[in-house]
Amino acid sequence: MPNTMQNLLAKNTALLVVDVQKGLNDPSLGNRNNPHAEKNIALLLAAWRQKDWPVVHVKHCSVEPDSLLRPGLPGNEIQTEAQPAPGEAVFSKTTNSAFIGTDLENFLHKEKIESLVVVGLTTDHCISTSVRMAANLGFDVILVSDATATHDRTGHDGVRYTAEQIHQVNLISLNGEFCQMAETQSLLQELN
Amino acid sequence: MPNTMQNLLAKNTALLVVDVQKGLNDPSLGNRNNPHAEKNIALLLAAWRQKDWPVVHVKHCSVEPDSLLRPGLPGNEIQTEAQPAPGEAVFSKTTNSAFIGTDLENFLHKEKIESLVVVGLTTDHCISTSVRMAANLGFDVILVSDATATHDRTGHDGVRYTAEQIHQVNLISLNGEFCQMAETQSLLQELN
Repeated sequence: MPNTMQNLLAKNTALLVVDVQKGLNDPSLGNRNNPHAEKNIALLLAAWRQKDWPVVHVKHCSVEPDSLLRPGLPGNEIQTEAQPAPGEAVFSKTTNSAFIGTDLENFLHKEKIESLVVVGLTTDHCISTSVRMAANLGFDVILVSDATATHDRTGHDGVRYTAEQIHQVNLISLNGEFCQMAETQSLLQELN
Repeated sequence: MPNTMQNLLAKNTALLVVDVQKGLNDPSLGNRNNPHAEKNIALLLAAWRQKDWPVVHVKHCSVEPDSLLRPGLPGNEIQTEAQPAPGEAVFSKTTNSAFIGTDLENFLHKEKIESLVVVGLTTDHCISTSVRMAANLGFDVILVSDATATHDRTGHDGVRYTAEQIHQVNLISLNGEFCQMAETQSLLQELN
């Protein structure tokens, strides 16, 4: 990471809001960590809008038969805290990566956006995949650790890990290699 | 994952060997888990070659000034156990993903390869990124859990996790969402 956070936060730094959809809070997905993620995302959205910096939304539109995030189902709807405002770009995707099967990469280049602040759900699936691919495509990425969350998961060997363990280890694997890490309040302070 | 492992293992299933390079065993990278990864990779390579199934190698050729994996440095060399045989494709990459900045995706389509068995280094950086992107690009992926490994890492909050913890949690985050998990011996049995 050659740049300091202050260098990355500029007029053309986009807030990329990934998959903050109702279906990802369905009880069937099990225990989730960080209940404050949505509140933090709302604070960051308000800050970006106040500065008139770019906000880009990504919405998962699953094509899998049993997914809660299929278009038309209530779980596909974006949560209240992350509703797109008029004029903000919204990209629909069918895979974990915000960059596969979407025009997001072209859009960012066209808008001369070179750095991204990433928030959304879930830490280890769509967030990790999108952060990795954004970095490998040449974007500078800040991931807001307390504006993302995930669920308890069980491995192929039957060992169960808590959502918080999964979340923390996934952040460690991204940190430095693919992104810088920030927390909502420190990021808001940098913005002011 | 709609397919059983037996369905995925067919004549055109490629063994994708990622970044088994000397630099990733440098002591400066800290403690590594799973010292048997290279031995398992060698066993899988032998099995693939005996069946005359496709083997594809990916080699990291870093452009970062302080990387041990820059071309020309000893760390860039592929380890003995994973040396490409004559006629096997080798793709050089500069990012974590085997699919960014390389012709790998086109090559696999041209060769009518739809499923991949992935092995190599490191679990949470180049392996996880390449598995995620392979899956999102539409390939069926089997990840061999004991033919990959990673290092101890420290988070942005200063908390240190062991290589084995990082390895296991990263496998859990991939399992079912991006790939099926296999172990070397069970996979070799499926092949025979």
